[in-house]
Amino acid sequence: MIKVAILGATGYTALELLKLLSRHPQAEVVAVTSRENTDPICIVHPSLTGLYSIRCENLKPSELAERGVDAVFSCLPHTATAAVAPELLALGMKVVDFGADYRLNDAAVFNKWYNVTHPDPERLPLTPYGLPELFREKIRGANLVANPGCYPTSAILPLAPLLKGGFIAPDDVIIDSKSGVSGAGRKPSLKNLYPECNEAISAYGIGTHRHTPEIEEVLSTASGADVKVIFTPHLTPMDRGILTTTYSRPLKDASQQDVLDYLRDFYKDEPFVQVVDAAPSTKDVIHTNRCHLTARVVGGRLLTISVIDNLIKGAAGAAVQNFNIIFGLEETTALI
Amino acid sequence: MIKVAILGATGYTALELLKLLSRHPQAEVVAVTSRENTDPICIVHPSLTGLYSIRCENLKPSELAERGVDAVFSCLPHTATAAVAPELLALGMKVVDFGADYRLNDAAVFNKWYNVTHPDPERLPLTPYGLPELFREKIRGANLVANPGCYPTSAILPLAPLLKGGFIAPDDVIIDSKSGVSGAGRKPSLKNLYPECNEAISAYGIGTHRHTPEIEEVLSTASGADVKVIFTPHLTPMDRGILTTTYSRPLKDASQQDVLDYLRDFYKDEPFVQVVDAAPSTKDVIHTNRCHLTARVVGGRLLTISVIDNLIKGAAGAAVQNFNIIFGLEETTALI
Amino acid sequence: MIKVAILGATGYTALELLKLLSRHPQAEVVAVTSRENTDPICIVHPSLTGLYSIRCENLKPSELAERGVDAVFSCLPHTATAAVAPELLALGMKVVDFGADYRLNDAAVFNKWYNVTHPDPERLPLTPYGLPELFREKIRGANLVANPGCYPTSAILPLAPLLKGGFIAPDDVIIDSKSGVSGAGRKPSLKNLYPECNEAISAYGIGTHRHTPEIEEVLSTASGADVKVIFTPHLTPMDRGILTTTYSRPLKDASQQDVLDYLRDFYKDEPFVQVVDAAPSTKDVIHTNRCHLTARVVGGRLLTISVIDNLIKGAAGAAVQNFNIIFGLEETTALI
Amino acid sequence: MIKVAILGATGYTALELLKLLSRHPQAEVVAVTSRENTDPICIVHPSLTGLYSIRCENLKPSELAERGVDAVFSCLPHTATAAVAPELLALGMKVVDFGADYRLNDAAVFNKWYNVTHPDPERLPLTPYGLPELFREKIRGANLVANPGCYPTSAILPLAPLLKGGFIAPDDVIIDSKSGVSGAGRKPSLKNLYPECNEAISAYGIGTHRHTPEIEEVLSTASGADVKVIFTPHLTPMDRGILTTTYSRPLKDASQQDVLDYLRDFYKDEPFVQVVDAAPSTKDVIHTNRCHLTARVVGGRLLTISVIDNLIKGAAGAAVQNFNIIFGLEETTALI
Repeated sequence: MIKVAILGATGYTALELLKLLSRHPQAEVVAVTSRENTDPICIVHPSLTGLYSIRCENLKPSELAERGVDAVFSCLPHTATAAVAPELLALGMKVVDFGADYRLNDAAVFNKWYNVTHPDPERLPLTPYGLPELFREKIRGANLVANPGCYPTSAILPLAPLLKGGFIAPDDVIIDSKSGVSGAGRKPSLKNLYPECNEAISAYGIGTHRHTPEIEEVLSTASGADVKVIFTPHLTPMDRGILTTTYSRPLKDASQQDVLDYLRDFYKDEPFVQVVDAAPSTKDVIHTNRCHLTARVVGGRLLTISVIDNLIKGAAGAAVQNFNIIFGLEETTALI
Repeated sequence: MIKVAILGATGYTALELLKLLSRHPQAEVVAVTSRENTDPICIVHPSLTGLYSIRCENLKPSELAERGVDAVFSCLPHTATAAVAPELLALGMKVVDFGADYRLNDAAVFNKWYNVTHPDPERLPLTPYGLPELFREKIRGANLVANPGCYPTSAILPLAPLLKGGFIAPDDVIIDSKSGVSGAGRKPSLKNLYPECNEAISAYGIGTHRHTPEIEEVLSTASGADVKVIFTPHLTPMDRGILTTTYSRPLKDASQQDVLDYLRDFYKDEPFVQVVDAAPSTKDVIHTNRCHLTARVVGGRLLTISVIDNLIKGAAGAAVQNFNIIFGLEETTALI
Repeated sequence: MIKVAILGATGYTALELLKLLSRHPQAEVVAVTSRENTDPICIVHPSLTGLYSIRCENLKPSELAERGVDAVFSCLPHTATAAVAPELLALGMKVVDFGADYRLNDAAVFNKWYNVTHPDPERLPLTPYGLPELFREKIRGANLVANPGCYPTSAILPLAPLLKGGFIAPDDVIIDSKSGVSGAGRKPSLKNLYPECNEAISAYGIGTHRHTPEIEEVLSTASGADVKVIFTPHLTPMDRGILTTTYSRPLKDASQQDVLDYLRDFYKDEPFVQVVDAAPSTKDVIHTNRCHLTARVVGGRLLTISVIDNLIKGAAGAAVQNFNIIFGLEETTALI
Repeated sequence: MIKVAILGATGYTALELLKLLSRHPQAEVVAVTSRENTDPICIVHPSLTGLYSIRCENLKPSELAERGVDAVFSCLPHTATAAVAPELLALGMKVVDFGADYRLNDAAVFNKWYNVTHPDPERLPLTPYGLPELFREKIRGANLVANPGCYPTSAILPLAPLLKGGFIAPDDVIIDSKSGVSGAGRKPSLKNLYPECNEAISAYGIGTHRHTPEIEEVLSTASGADVKVIFTPHLTPMDRGILTTTYSRPLKDASQQDVLDYLRDFYKDEPFVQVVDAAPSTKDVIHTNRCHLTARVVGGRLLTISVIDNLIKGAAGAAVQNFNIIFGLEETTALI
């Protein structure tokens, strides 16, 4: 059994991770950490009742090592993972970071968008971006993987192939995303209060959301072009799920069917990406690790519509997928 | 014009009150207070954009008097109103308290359930309970009125007539209520976070909710009997609305039709209580000051089902109704 | 009193209209029609209990005339209004059509998009489009007004001024709209079933929605340019409200503040359009006749975000606004 | 592999069953039936994309036998299963009926409540009620099992032990249940339309719901007493989940702790029943086969609060649990 620890286990992504790992035949959760909380994890997350008896603890890397931890899933806030990752790695643990600390290559870009100084800048360019559909080989054998953001996953999966294939212009990409409220985390604030979010949809972080440079950098890496996007996230009254609608300028005289055929071929061997004909609903993929996506050619634009579960394919499911790859396990273990 | 001030204007009941008062031809809002907030009220509550330009201020009773305030609606937390009410009244202002401070007659009961010492105990037995359908005459000409709690309003309207009429036993009354999340207020906490409340229903305060003594005291006052109830509130995934289902032991051999006829006759002159035949939905009354209620005789029990909007008939609407009565205005002004 | 009839009174837009008219001092509802239904309207719509005692009837234009009807609000399906409008007008009644029958100028375009033959083609070019903010003078004194579609209202209000002012290119406008489920009407079908819509967002009618030609024609008329748009509606899990995000190519070197100042000036005298600085939420405007809109300049694009209540400013409220203008009443009557 | 067929595969309970069976190592779905629908099941239920390629067919029992079907899950409407069950059984197939056809012992009671004539009355008293926690031995080796109703499961699990243990009176049991909308099925009707259900809670079938005799009969069988209940279901704005609150008259002077200890001991070996201290939320158990329940002693009444997922423990999960028992498999297979 691979001994697993989860850092920052009181939030929603950790909850989903714990649910997935309870079905994982090769993983054993031996530690869940929290700075303040010392309750049993099934009190913190009542839906884990009967699945886990372990308590939250405030553990240092050395204590995790003493416990024989092989792999760490970090759900800590940004910069907190980069503050402990070097020690965890030095102690021989593999690390999957749910946060943004290692997603970008350039610490300067990170510092600008996150308005901090990155604690571990050297490691940024060396750390693979944990989207297996694009970077599986880099992930294999890595000790540290940067789990993608939820919005980026929903946008990169449809756009990267189209950019690689030269179907769309890299300098005129519009991304309009709609996310459930769990994406805002479990920390109480006015913005994620039930009566503020329910029966309401609103845009936020227009042109300023931190996932923008992540999307641009990964799409640029994947396509070799200098990709610029306009990204507008919307807070939608549902627990989970992201629907992303993109609008791009076509570079080829390709029909809608050509585009769908190309995307189907591109993802034909991927267990978690389904190219569909009908417009997908987030309901088709929530509580799964799948992405459903389709494309349309409308009025001289190429549109894509993609849906994922922000907590699974957009977080915990992708993390388990990366964990499976790192440890050479069947990639779909605990995910189907 | 009657000059009105609202104390504690940043919450949901104050928002509903401001919406109602924007349609009131004889009321002018001249002050809205908050301890911390100094924003324009239409920034605090964007749905008031274009309706109010006034800002939040931290005002003392004397400052309200200087501004010529005639009537104060207090949406302050419990004991905070009782701490200022004496001064407001001494300065000649009428006060409608949204909170619990003056709902009970006995300060000892208040102190026990609210675990505090009441700042103004003498005034409790003298203050009318602001449910016009039962206590209109006491409210008329009062200087201070205790606006009812939302759950009590939903339970008292169907039960008080049945107790007065000797239809049901006072010692065996079960009240099962379901409320929208706005009832939990606008202060962020884990319990009213969107992802915690959405797609979820749960019971809380079972046998310990502070509305229990209020319901028992008012029903006892209204019926002359010593009424004991079991009250179970449930948090329901909707913004607003309360549905209350009650189960009582019949004392008369009355048919369902007899009971409905009696209730119809009891409320025949009430503009805001409708006795209906079909089982009502909260959707029939939200955004109105109305209560819809019906009764059923099932398996040797007399059931009632009643619905209100917790923020209007259960709070702001009742407050305006009381305001209209106190100032001798048409009782339905701004409420239809 | 102006005697009013509502054709097709069993749906959601008719319900909102009836609520608004119950507060209208100069309007009296004397007839509500339905082909099948003969119930009292307060049984069809329980939230009208106590407000209306009138029953649904199946009435011919001549019968409406006999009843002295001055104004008809038609909530009939498309082509049904155009089948009766000529007779209603001949009998001297004013008509506000909630449907699409008279929104377009060109019957050929209508026939193509609605896949029918228009019953009254001559009247199309003569009928004003009932968006008072743009066509108030044409509406004044008209006998027939075409009430705008909900999506078009949300898109035209932010875009028309920018096109008129030459701020954006007419040939590269992307409109991404998110609507509550009431927009799908009250006829039961799998697509608007609760468990299909709840916890789900999906795009539909991509590039094929019938509001596309309406938006293009009205924006072209308003701006004098030949406007082409890409319009993608999304079904969002909420009862009501539309949020529309638009992406256009700027033609001027105008700052975000310039754009906001221009829009504020453009709408400075409009009671129902508020240009706001913060990103608006549908919650700020639902249950009102207001539109809140803002603009952003992001990555070489000009974005607008606008919110309305699809059933009020997008239907019943606009209809009452048009009714008020036609009859020379205060335009805001029953709407504030 | 056990070859499985699902009759009536287009509804919500069949969807959940197909999801569960996709994880079942010993079950293979070889047929899914529908009277009208001939689409691939992943078109009928897009969330099954990638999991199943099978199409809906209209198959007779003999055709199922030719296909080598070992076990049939029937999701057909009431009386439809009883019309084919005899032939299915004669052909050697095991049958788990999701419907009510075989839940009651007495055909006369069935005929009265369902207002039909039961097609297979002799088999009623011989068919075990598929609630393993109470009737595991009867289920083992049975060829036909009646899967319990969702409301009955939520009410029987907390009440049966208390009745067996003599903790509560059998003649004074009040059951107040709150269910998500999926319980109303997938057939479009006004009552389960999104805008009718959302932001609304209502009671229905008060004293007339068909689960009433089922609850009474099973509780009587389990306890040996003649149990009478008052059952009030409420339609709650959520996809799934049932919370049931019961109010009974205690027969013993047992403390709350005594009751909780007794229930914990009663269910100590049950993998899917958890006795909890805190008031449970439906959110703790949705998407699982678990029931969480607790008890309270309040004002001379014994209360229980229990939560299940109506589609899993209340339908598809229980069916798989029964399937596992019938075929001698590990009972929790595909359910944890």
